[in-house]
Amino acid sequence: MDFWFRCCVCSAQTPFGLRETKCACGGTLLVEYDLERAARDMTKAALRARPASMWRYAELLPVSNPEFIVSLGEGWTPLLRLDAAERALPLGKLWVKREEQNPTGSFKARGMSVALSVAREHGVRKVAVNSNGNAASALAAYAARAGMEAYAFLPKDCPWMIAEECVHYGARTTLVDGFIHDAGKIILDGKAEQGWHHVGTLREPGRAEGKKTMGLELAEQLGWKLPDVIVYPTGGGSGIIGMWSAFRQLRELGWIDGKLPRIVAVQETGCAPIVRAMSGRSGPEAAVDSTPTGMRVPNPPDGQLLVRILRETGGTAVEVSADDIRSAQTVMGKLGVSSSPEGAATWAGLAVLLDRGWIGPDEEVVLFNTSHAMKYWPKDGRSLPEVRSYEDWKKIQP
Amino acid sequence: MDFWFRCCVCSAQTPFGLRETKCACGGTLLVEYDLERAARDMTKAALRARPASMWRYAELLPVSNPEFIVSLGEGWTPLLRLDAAERALPLGKLWVKREEQNPTGSFKARGMSVALSVAREHGVRKVAVNSNGNAASALAAYAARAGMEAYAFLPKDCPWMIAEECVHYGARTTLVDGFIHDAGKIILDGKAEQGWHHVGTLREPGRAEGKKTMGLELAEQLGWKLPDVIVYPTGGGSGIIGMWSAFRQLRELGWIDGKLPRIVAVQETGCAPIVRAMSGRSGPEAAVDSTPTGMRVPNPPDGQLLVRILRETGGTAVEVSADDIRSAQTVMGKLGVSSSPEGAATWAGLAVLLDRGWIGPDEEVVLFNTSHAMKYWPKDGRSLPEVRSYEDWKKIQP
Repeated sequence: MDFWFRCCVCSAQTPFGLRETKCACGGTLLVEYDLERAARDMTKAALRARPASMWRYAELLPVSNPEFIVSLGEGWTPLLRLDAAERALPLGKLWVKREEQNPTGSFKARGMSVALSVAREHGVRKVAVNSNGNAASALAAYAARAGMEAYAFLPKDCPWMIAEECVHYGARTTLVDGFIHDAGKIILDGKAEQGWHHVGTLREPGRAEGKKTMGLELAEQLGWKLPDVIVYPTGGGSGIIGMWSAFRQLRELGWIDGKLPRIVAVQETGCAPIVRAMSGRSGPEAAVDSTPTGMRVPNPPDGQLLVRILRETGGTAVEVSADDIRSAQTVMGKLGVSSSPEGAATWAGLAVLLDRGWIGPDEEVVLFNTSHAMKYWPKDGRSLPEVRSYEDWKKIQP
Repeated sequence: MDFWFRCCVCSAQTPFGLRETKCACGGTLLVEYDLERAARDMTKAALRARPASMWRYAELLPVSNPEFIVSLGEGWTPLLRLDAAERALPLGKLWVKREEQNPTGSFKARGMSVALSVAREHGVRKVAVNSNGNAASALAAYAARAGMEAYAFLPKDCPWMIAEECVHYGARTTLVDGFIHDAGKIILDGKAEQGWHHVGTLREPGRAEGKKTMGLELAEQLGWKLPDVIVYPTGGGSGIIGMWSAFRQLRELGWIDGKLPRIVAVQETGCAPIVRAMSGRSGPEAAVDSTPTGMRVPNPPDGQLLVRILRETGGTAVEVSADDIRSAQTVMGKLGVSSSPEGAATWAGLAVLLDRGWIGPDEEVVLFNTSHAMKYWPKDGRSLPEVRSYEDWKKIQP
């Protein structure tokens, strides 16, 4: 095997495994690769000729035999320059990584593509996930593709359209009276009896590795130069862990140098454990009252590692209100971008940090738009005017 | 200028223009290019190094100055092999072009990217479209990106989520008591007074040219070899016209040879004017009673050209019922694909043609999945089971 685990706390190395995620010392296990060997085939030149897929980085993903790869066309999403916005703010350069253009309309496709490839290589037949939405629909799609049975457990107030999506892909979909960790408890309680492979955040190694490709793509799409700041909506935080792994591996390969981007975790007021932890407060939220988005994760599986990464990169964590998020969705829509609440939260977070002077006007910033706006729309949409003719239409103009 | 119009009926050549689409003889004007000049820079080798965007084919798109390009990250969508399905049917090779992975979640992004680039190059400030949905939301997004005012007119029974999407991107959105052509009449009646540039199907040259990139990509993604059959959901049919232009240009460039793919237009029973025309019946539908999808276009702007293309390629037109489409959506969902009714209609059409023996078991077929499943979901979704614990969950298992 060209990959193995290394504990991010005590640095102990252990063999790669399907279900391991924690070291004996309690630290999270991250996947390490034989980078010298990886770089033999995966040169920068070779990459330029590879398909527009996150599997272009196969040498840095924990699947031994490519026949087991479960792919639906994920990754290599556009990195769109928001030039009008960067002039207005102002900001040196502003990009948005359009993760909603993944197969299931969200960034979760990346993690599930790798998690289910690993699972398939290890002979898994039944997969289960607890999720605020998009991870569940991605699991459902990739399980369908892999011919596995999928079980999705979602908080009952999750976006209804994403729950429908799970059903579209044939997953056994159940709503749970509680939060994402309550949904996770059902899997923990049932997995021995049901034979479920648990693909919840940091319950297996594939998802964080899949998210790593966001960091690899960002580097390649920017010509192997990283931006000053990455603003990322944060729930469980596997995307931050994955991107940090990506940057460290790229540095070890000698493909990037200098400082890593300052990573900013954005959360919503009412459930911001990473923001609390960054300011030295720990322990569970007194009362969770944020909206049901992917950022609502009261007990992230490894909050300590997230804090360490944010500190190590010189980053920060910032909370924004539900109202700020709604306004930011309007702004992003008027830039032509279909932005989920989580994606819009990055815009709101950027505004806060520009305001504080934490981000300077000459800096280069990347926002992650993790999902489509429409996946979150309530059933009680606005009522639109209805006409029969141009004359009718003229009458209703202001 | 390196591009101009040629009438598809009388072959007369005229200068390219923003609003022309019909020759004096009544034929549709198609854009022609100086292919020799295009091939100087756009070699096959050069293409391999270009970005994963439909604008990689800029030499074959009618924008003179690249500064006017209005892009949101469209095109170069994945071509996914459905290997499990091709073994089961059986079929030589089966692919699905995942057009739902475009920026606005549909293939309409391609046409609007080009239409608004052309419009921007010509100084347009206000754009209007009549649409069954996805063309309107794409117009809205690209107009937002271009800083233009957008006016969208949609049949009142169009998918509510797509109407919402238009609003998300800031378009002035109006529902019309009627069909797509009734919505179009409002634009025709108002455009002089309002100064609207009409970007309805075949009202300007950009949209069909944008759709052309689907054909160019298909050829490049398959290594400059085309499939035997393309199955395409058809409303106004600009995608068929565009892909046919693509293949003819590629043949003239000497990049492909042999027969063109047989193009199959799929429509829904209750509004299938192309199916009627192919069997020699013409005139308007007696009564339109199909579901409100992009295929519901009772009077396609140039049905004659569509019939000619289908005949010339040895293709056909086939109608499928709303029930067939619903079943096909379930099938595609269980293959892991988020398929709109239009995309699923291609699966249903494929089944009909395999059944008839019109498509043989050794052939290579490409389906076009034009949009995401979720954009069409009704507000009265199914009710999912709700539990508090694993024990609860076990009780409700069958």
